[in-house]
Amino acid sequence: MPKFMDVHHGMKDITADGLREAHQDDLAIEGQEGVHFEKAWADPESGTVYCLSEAPSAEAVQRVHERTGHPADEIHPVPLTV
Amino acid sequence: MPKFMDVHHGMKDITADGLREAHQDDLAIEGQEGVHFEKAWADPESGTVYCLSEAPSAEAVQRVHERTGHPADEIHPVPLTV
Repeated sequence: MPKFMDVHHGMKDITADGLREAHQDDLAIEGQEGVHFEKAWADPESGTVYCLSEAPSAEAVQRVHERTGHPADEIHPVPLTV
Repeated sequence: MPKFMDVHHGMKDITADGLREAHQDDLAIEGQEGVHFEKAWADPESGTVYCLSEAPSAEAVQRVHERTGHPADEIHPVPLTV
């Protein structure tokens, strides 16, 4: 299944708990779209969050993020990995 | 050791071989700066590359990338991970 990296801006001062809760919300409904969120990384200072997922499409990733209240600002397919 | 996510733009049409070679070049000299590049993901269509590293500082990450000829456009500390 294709991999995607999505990016959220404007998440300044996000906490460890906030990140974990947002990720748990995504995990709770991701199956509805055939998505799996593998990992997320956050920079509270600049307010940037990166999420790595496997999904059928970028649109499916976005539908999950929208339903959990945090739509992504960018979603890139990342077909190459090392 | 702190984790960093760095982003390269303008890598349009990067190939699997190109990504692997760039990553290998970084791995070959990363020890000079106490950096370890864990993983990299590329979107050849938009020309975006993400690198995840452990490093003493963002400056150390950049020194490795500069010496191998591909300075990063953004380097974010990512102290939070899920």
